[in-house]
Amino acid sequence: MRMVDIITKKKSGYELSPEEISFFIKGYTKGEIPDYQVSALMMAIFFKGMSEKETLALTMEMADSGDHLDLSAISGIKVDKHSTGGVGDKTSLSLTPIVASCGVPVAKMSGRGLGHTGGTIDKLESFDGFNVSISEKEFIDNVNSIGISLMAQTADLAPADKKLYALRDVTGTVDNMSLIASSIMSKKLAAGADAIVLDVKTGSGAFMKTLEDSRALAKAMVDIGNGAGRKTVALITDMDQPLGNAVGNAIEVREAIDTLNGKGPADFTELVYALATKMLILGEKAKTEEEALDMIKNAVTSGKALEKLASFIKAQGGNPDQVYDPSLLRVSDSVMVLKADASGFVDRITCDKVGVACMMLGGGRASKEDTIDLSVGIKLLKKKGDEVKEGDDLAMIYYSDEKKLTSALEELKSAYHIASVKPEKSVLIKEMIG
Amino acid sequence: MRMVDIITKKKSGYELSPEEISFFIKGYTKGEIPDYQVSALMMAIFFKGMSEKETLALTMEMADSGDHLDLSAISGIKVDKHSTGGVGDKTSLSLTPIVASCGVPVAKMSGRGLGHTGGTIDKLESFDGFNVSISEKEFIDNVNSIGISLMAQTADLAPADKKLYALRDVTGTVDNMSLIASSIMSKKLAAGADAIVLDVKTGSGAFMKTLEDSRALAKAMVDIGNGAGRKTVALITDMDQPLGNAVGNAIEVREAIDTLNGKGPADFTELVYALATKMLILGEKAKTEEEALDMIKNAVTSGKALEKLASFIKAQGGNPDQVYDPSLLRVSDSVMVLKADASGFVDRITCDKVGVACMMLGGGRASKEDTIDLSVGIKLLKKKGDEVKEGDDLAMIYYSDEKKLTSALEELKSAYHIASVKPEKSVLIKEMIG
Repeated sequence: MRMVDIITKKKSGYELSPEEISFFIKGYTKGEIPDYQVSALMMAIFFKGMSEKETLALTMEMADSGDHLDLSAISGIKVDKHSTGGVGDKTSLSLTPIVASCGVPVAKMSGRGLGHTGGTIDKLESFDGFNVSISEKEFIDNVNSIGISLMAQTADLAPADKKLYALRDVTGTVDNMSLIASSIMSKKLAAGADAIVLDVKTGSGAFMKTLEDSRALAKAMVDIGNGAGRKTVALITDMDQPLGNAVGNAIEVREAIDTLNGKGPADFTELVYALATKMLILGEKAKTEEEALDMIKNAVTSGKALEKLASFIKAQGGNPDQVYDPSLLRVSDSVMVLKADASGFVDRITCDKVGVACMMLGGGRASKEDTIDLSVGIKLLKKKGDEVKEGDDLAMIYYSDEKKLTSALEELKSAYHIASVKPEKSVLIKEMIG
Repeated sequence: MRMVDIITKKKSGYELSPEEISFFIKGYTKGEIPDYQVSALMMAIFFKGMSEKETLALTMEMADSGDHLDLSAISGIKVDKHSTGGVGDKTSLSLTPIVASCGVPVAKMSGRGLGHTGGTIDKLESFDGFNVSISEKEFIDNVNSIGISLMAQTADLAPADKKLYALRDVTGTVDNMSLIASSIMSKKLAAGADAIVLDVKTGSGAFMKTLEDSRALAKAMVDIGNGAGRKTVALITDMDQPLGNAVGNAIEVREAIDTLNGKGPADFTELVYALATKMLILGEKAKTEEEALDMIKNAVTSGKALEKLASFIKAQGGNPDQVYDPSLLRVSDSVMVLKADASGFVDRITCDKVGVACMMLGGGRASKEDTIDLSVGIKLLKKKGDEVKEGDDLAMIYYSDEKKLTSALEELKSAYHIASVKPEKSVLIKEMIG
C-alpha cells in the first residue's frame, strides 16, 4: 500500500477502505508517513468528503492510536458530555454534580481554555487548592467513592488526532464536517464512557454558524458514537450570545454555584437541565424526560447537587467552603461598568468579542503557554432582547490590571449592538439528534 | 502574509495575487515554508485551478528562483524547442542541425531519459567522445562559432520547480494543467531563448491522452510564453504510436541521420519539417511557411544540415565520422525478430510498452542512478495501418544481454495489436496553437 495511491483515490472521489485508513493513521502516528502527504489527503477530503463508514473508521483508528481510559472498574453506565465550545459555557460545573447526585457516575476528562473560549479545568482551579493532575487510580477511586471526578486530559489520548489537528490547523483543512466530528469523537471514544451527550453550539459565537452546519456536525458525531457502540445523542443549542451572564473563571464558578442553588440565569439553567435529562436517561436512572426532570429539580432543591460539588472539590484538594460561600472565590474588587450609549433594545452580543475582551483582561490564553488570571471577568447585565436607555449599565468588568482595561472595554463595547426594534427571542435548545 | 491564509484563499476559489505567489515560491525555495503547506496548496489548486494571470506569475517566480541562462552574447533570435515527451522522439537530433544550418542560433539545454522515454543527452552520447558537460562559456562560444550547442540541464535552473515537482509527484498533485504548464515553461524561460516552439504530444503514449487536454496544455503554455514576452507557438502532434521506427539511443541517432540525408521515416520527417518551419519563422529567417519549407529542403538536399551536425558533434568532442557513416555508431549485433502471430492490420502499437521493452533491454533508466546501454533498441518494421500476415517480421530487437531479452520480447509483443479491419490513418500534426 502506498500513501500516494490513497491520496489519488480520495482525490478522484472514491471511498477509502478501512484498511487504507488504518494504514494512513498508523503510518502517520509512527512518523512513517510524512506531513506533506497527509496534508494533501486532508485537502482532498475537504473537497471530496468522507462517507459515514470512512468517518467511523478514521475515528476508531485515531481513538486506537494511543491509550484508552479503562473505566471498567466503575460500576454503572458512565455517561460523558461534550460541548463544541462557546463563551460563558460553564455547563459542566453545574451539570456533573447534578447527574452525579442522581446516581450517574461522572468520570470526565476536560481541557484548558484557548483563545476566546474558557476551559472547565481552568475554572475549577478557582477553588483554592483544587488539583486536576490526579492519577488514573485516584480518578477511578474518586468516582467509585463520591460518584464524580474530573481530570486534565492526558497527552496519550488519541495522539493521532492531536498530530492531525495541528497539521490541519496550519494547512487550511480544519473546516470539514467529517474531520471535525472524528477529531472530537476519537477523544471521547478513547475516554471510555458508555454513552455520550453532545452539546453542539450553533450561531455567530459557535464554530458552526448555521443551524444546517450544526445539524450536519451533530449527525456525524451521533453516527460515529452509535457506530462505535456508544449510545449518543446531541442537542443543538444557541450560541448567538454568551451563555448565562458570567464570562471568566471564578465569576463563572459563582454562577454555576448559583445555578445549583436554583438561582442561575434562565438560559443557563434551561441548558443544564436539558443536558442532565439526557444523561439520566442514557445512564438508565430515569425512563422518561418528566421523571428525569423531577429528579434534577429535587437534586437542586434538596441541596444534594451542591453537596456533591462540595465533596468533589474536597476530594481533589479544593476548599469546599467556597462552594457554600461563593464570595470566598477570588473575583477582583476592581470593577468598571460599561454603559449604553444609546436607547433601544439589545439586538446582538457578539460572543467572540466578549471572549476576547475577557482574554484581554488576562482571563484567557492567547497561546498555550500563557498563565491566566482567574479573578477577572465580565458580567453581562443586559442580554439580547432587553430594553435599555442611554446611560444604563450594560455590563460589569472585573479587572486587576488597569493597563489591560481600556482595550478590553473597547472590545466589550463593540460586542453590544443596540437597535430600535426589539429582536426576536432566541430559542435556546433548537433540536435534538439521535 | 501567512501561508495558511494563501491556502485558504485558494481553497475558497479566489485568485491569488502575484505578491502571494511570490511569497509562497520564495519562501518554499528558501525552505521557510514547509512541504506540508505547499502540498495542501497544490491539492487546492488541483480542485480550484489557476487563472492565466496566476499561472504566469507562478511560472515567472519559478523561473526567477535560480539562475537564468544569459544568451545575450549570441546575436540573432534564439529559438528553443520543447517536446512534452514520447517514445522514439529523436526530433531535436534532426531539427537543430537543420535550423542552425538555416541561420537560427541553437543554444539548447536538454535532459536525460527516465522511465519509458529517452533523452536527447543520452542519445547524443552515442557519438564516441561527445561531451554534454561543457561550461556556459564554451556553450555560448560554440553557438557563436558554429551556430549550435547542446548541454545538459544544470541544477540551478528553476530550482523551485524541481522542488515543487518532486513534492507533487508524491502527493498526487501532478495532473493539473496550470501546474504542468508552469513547470515546463519555468525551465524554458530560465533557459533564456527569445522564442519557443512547443511540441505537445497527444494520444495513448502521451502524458495528455485526449486532444482536448493536449489543447488545454498547449494553450496554457503558449499563454505563459507570450505573457512572459517570448513568442511561443505549439503544435499538437500524434503520440498514439512511437514516432518514426527506431526506439533506443544509437539506433535513434542513426534514424535522425537518415532523416538529415532525406531518407527518414515519413512521419518523423513530417514532424521535423513542421517544427523547423515554425522555428525559422519565429527566428525571422523566413516570412512564410512556403519559404521556410524551401529552406529546410535545401538544407537537407545540399547536405548542409548533415555538415552542421558533424561540426556540432566535433565541437563537443564527438567523432564526426559517425555522422557521415552511421554504421560506425555502436548498435548491437545481436538481433531477435518479433513475428506476427496473426494476419490482419496493425491496429495499435502501445507506446509505453515499446518504451518499457527498450528500458528492459538496458536502453533506459528505471531510476535516475541507472547507467544505460546505448547500443540496444528496437526497430519497428510495421506501424499502424500496415497489413501483416502471420509470421511476418513486426520488429527487430537489438539486445546485448540475453537474460534481458525474454521479458523485453514479451513486452514488445504485447504492444502490437493486430485487427482484421484496417484502422483509420492517424493525422500526425493535429493542430497549431498560437
